[in-house]
Amino acid sequence: MKNERTENQTRLLVLMSDFGLSERFVASMKGVALGVDQNLKIYDLTHLIEPYNVWEASLTLAGTIAYWPQNTVFVSVVDPGVGTARKSVVLRTKSGHFVVTPDNGTLTFVAEQYGVAELREIDEKVNRRPGTDDAHTFHGRDVYAYTGARLAAGVISFEQVGPSLRPEVVKLPYQPAEKVSKTTILGNVTKVEKPYGNIVTNIPKELFDAFALNPDHKEMIQVEIKQDAETVFCQKTPYVKSFGHVKPGQPLLYVDSVQRMGLAVNGGNFADIHKVKAGPEWTIKLMKPTNRTQQQEPK
Amino acid sequence: MKNERTENQTRLLVLMSDFGLSERFVASMKGVALGVDQNLKIYDLTHLIEPYNVWEASLTLAGTIAYWPQNTVFVSVVDPGVGTARKSVVLRTKSGHFVVTPDNGTLTFVAEQYGVAELREIDEKVNRRPGTDDAHTFHGRDVYAYTGARLAAGVISFEQVGPSLRPEVVKLPYQPAEKVSKTTILGNVTKVEKPYGNIVTNIPKELFDAFALNPDHKEMIQVEIKQDAETVFCQKTPYVKSFGHVKPGQPLLYVDSVQRMGLAVNGGNFADIHKVKAGPEWTIKLMKPTNRTQQQEPK
Amino acid sequence: MKNERTENQTRLLVLMSDFGLSERFVASMKGVALGVDQNLKIYDLTHLIEPYNVWEASLTLAGTIAYWPQNTVFVSVVDPGVGTARKSVVLRTKSGHFVVTPDNGTLTFVAEQYGVAELREIDEKVNRRPGTDDAHTFHGRDVYAYTGARLAAGVISFEQVGPSLRPEVVKLPYQPAEKVSKTTILGNVTKVEKPYGNIVTNIPKELFDAFALNPDHKEMIQVEIKQDAETVFCQKTPYVKSFGHVKPGQPLLYVDSVQRMGLAVNGGNFADIHKVKAGPEWTIKLMKPTNRTQQQEPK
Repeated sequence: MKNERTENQTRLLVLMSDFGLSERFVASMKGVALGVDQNLKIYDLTHLIEPYNVWEASLTLAGTIAYWPQNTVFVSVVDPGVGTARKSVVLRTKSGHFVVTPDNGTLTFVAEQYGVAELREIDEKVNRRPGTDDAHTFHGRDVYAYTGARLAAGVISFEQVGPSLRPEVVKLPYQPAEKVSKTTILGNVTKVEKPYGNIVTNIPKELFDAFALNPDHKEMIQVEIKQDAETVFCQKTPYVKSFGHVKPGQPLLYVDSVQRMGLAVNGGNFADIHKVKAGPEWTIKLMKPTNRTQQQEPK
Repeated sequence: MKNERTENQTRLLVLMSDFGLSERFVASMKGVALGVDQNLKIYDLTHLIEPYNVWEASLTLAGTIAYWPQNTVFVSVVDPGVGTARKSVVLRTKSGHFVVTPDNGTLTFVAEQYGVAELREIDEKVNRRPGTDDAHTFHGRDVYAYTGARLAAGVISFEQVGPSLRPEVVKLPYQPAEKVSKTTILGNVTKVEKPYGNIVTNIPKELFDAFALNPDHKEMIQVEIKQDAETVFCQKTPYVKSFGHVKPGQPLLYVDSVQRMGLAVNGGNFADIHKVKAGPEWTIKLMKPTNRTQQQEPK
Repeated sequence: MKNERTENQTRLLVLMSDFGLSERFVASMKGVALGVDQNLKIYDLTHLIEPYNVWEASLTLAGTIAYWPQNTVFVSVVDPGVGTARKSVVLRTKSGHFVVTPDNGTLTFVAEQYGVAELREIDEKVNRRPGTDDAHTFHGRDVYAYTGARLAAGVISFEQVGPSLRPEVVKLPYQPAEKVSKTTILGNVTKVEKPYGNIVTNIPKELFDAFALNPDHKEMIQVEIKQDAETVFCQKTPYVKSFGHVKPGQPLLYVDSVQRMGLAVNGGNFADIHKVKAGPEWTIKLMKPTNRTQQQEPK
């Protein structure tokens, strides 16, 4: 069953899940993969994704792939809908990586950042561990790890994964970063940074620069954060260069280390204090101060 | 010292312990193993076994071995009796796997599920890391990881581990699942599932089926759970298909995903609420309702 | 770019950091390393070093290196001063191991225990991942893991790391174990053992033996523990063989399993009860009882 792609094999297999590290599930996946080819090189991305948090899985995966060699096969098993109608797929990215996963939103940021070269549905008649049946299949181990291992080992080609699908993955809907008026930018609350509780958004500095504000002037920005339709945070917040420019306990808006707009509390935990979390249903609105409403603290 | 078994070597070495992941102990074991053969492929099962919990170690190990290739060498170091008279052994299972461990109960479920092909005691005169002596030996590293590495690498054969023992491992005593009368089944509380607190027993569905009950009828089963002689839970509990068939906060008896009888609380944590844990000293009794005592909720 | 050292390559690369296990950072380092050479054998020491705790990093690293084969390359990324003037270096120890790290104190105990054979500064013009620049460099991944991988793979020789430095590493200053008078020994509080809260010092039994005390006599030792100049614990404490020789809840001074003086509370957590932590700024003083001040409990 070896095929012509063998020479391109890296045999690199990278596993991610929400299984945690104290149970036998991760080791079972590795054993099944090594049963396919004992020379696979298996690495962990993380197994501490918050249970069922497909959003976090997608962000973590998309933030990692670029650093791995082409032809690395990633297997992601964060699958709240196990047993439901979501498809089991393998994505070949335009960057030349493979991702084996339930198509449940896990590919949202992967598709955005790396592009969809081709998407195939796993044919479980062929690509399921022998001896398993519908009733007793642990998909993470018997379908995803098994198929990922076969692909990484060159036992099957990408074409042998199963039928080609339209090159469109299931995406979690979220608010893109956009300037909707001269004075208003919308975006998404992407992540709460542990352990400090700082808020990461998807609004790049260059978009915010359209407001033409100088952080030395401590302009007060109207910041609104909503979970779905419910307003969770709504406060005029100073735009400053760094934490030390506001009093301890005060919130601030700043440009973070990857040049995106962030929120924090000087010496405190913004997320805890203001009950803000992250995910597709969290949006943020930044409003530029106008002459009439502008408030500025004395410097 | 190479020997004829070399051709069968997988060089797969799988480590399990209660050492945790924040200290240097696991890495020290790996370094010693790679000092034996740098081409070993070392994987972790888990190092988050509850400290000294041999029961949990045995369950976790037995639940993993089947998924690994034949000739994989497992090293388990959960050793509350380090320095006492327990023997250091290597088990060859009938399934063709090897387990290096203190013979302190860790092999209970391994022997049951995989069978004892042969048991050998580690001869520490030969199979202890050079340069260590009685006073300064860290057994997990200097005996178990070292011997496991030598066996996995083919530096020693199984026979060279040490003298053969009678094929009987130390077993933790526990209540087997058995129907002791027409209306009574006994069993063991095997595990508390994290994070939900559901109770896993060793009573298979087919044994319970002897009661000939229909889960659609919500029959009330008398359930008693004891820790040693002390009754911890004693309550009539409905036998239903799934959580939604009882009110929130109510306990239920059901068939779990691996076809064993389980207990849960709808929307709650059975183990926390009812102070139930798992282990060899925990037993469960299920009593079929008789005509006189049968209580059935209106549907 | 291969060089003559290639034949000595172990391709063993061991990573340590304070990045934790739930984020993508560790996997990104591994991907970059495998991009250098897919046949590297990458292992983790731990990634659960307390954030920014260089002292703990140094102890953990020094306690592990000896168990690994010569030519193993260790990469340590605990770097509170990222972006400051600390140098990025590679240490070749007299034991024949390599450590890639910021020179910020991480090498304190490594240099002490293994010796400095040669120290080189990483030339980032050559040894930084292509495509990164000053503004967007993640040093752990783009300099340390990248350079460690190149060295472990034999892509560069040790000489090609960068210019040789004086063979002196940055050391965290701490109180060495020393007998400063006939009745007084000084030392450092090195570690709090989890989870029991016992105190580990750097005072070896043989130094304490100069007091010529018999643990069967339960002599009362004046023990003082300071954090910098502040006294945190000051109490006459019995020197005994083991925990059971004092009443529950009472502190004791004893010889631990690696033949160093330790402090504990029988059935309790010394560190929690007495608010003692460990680190370079923690010192301990042991004073031998004199005839006039000697207090001895009845046996």
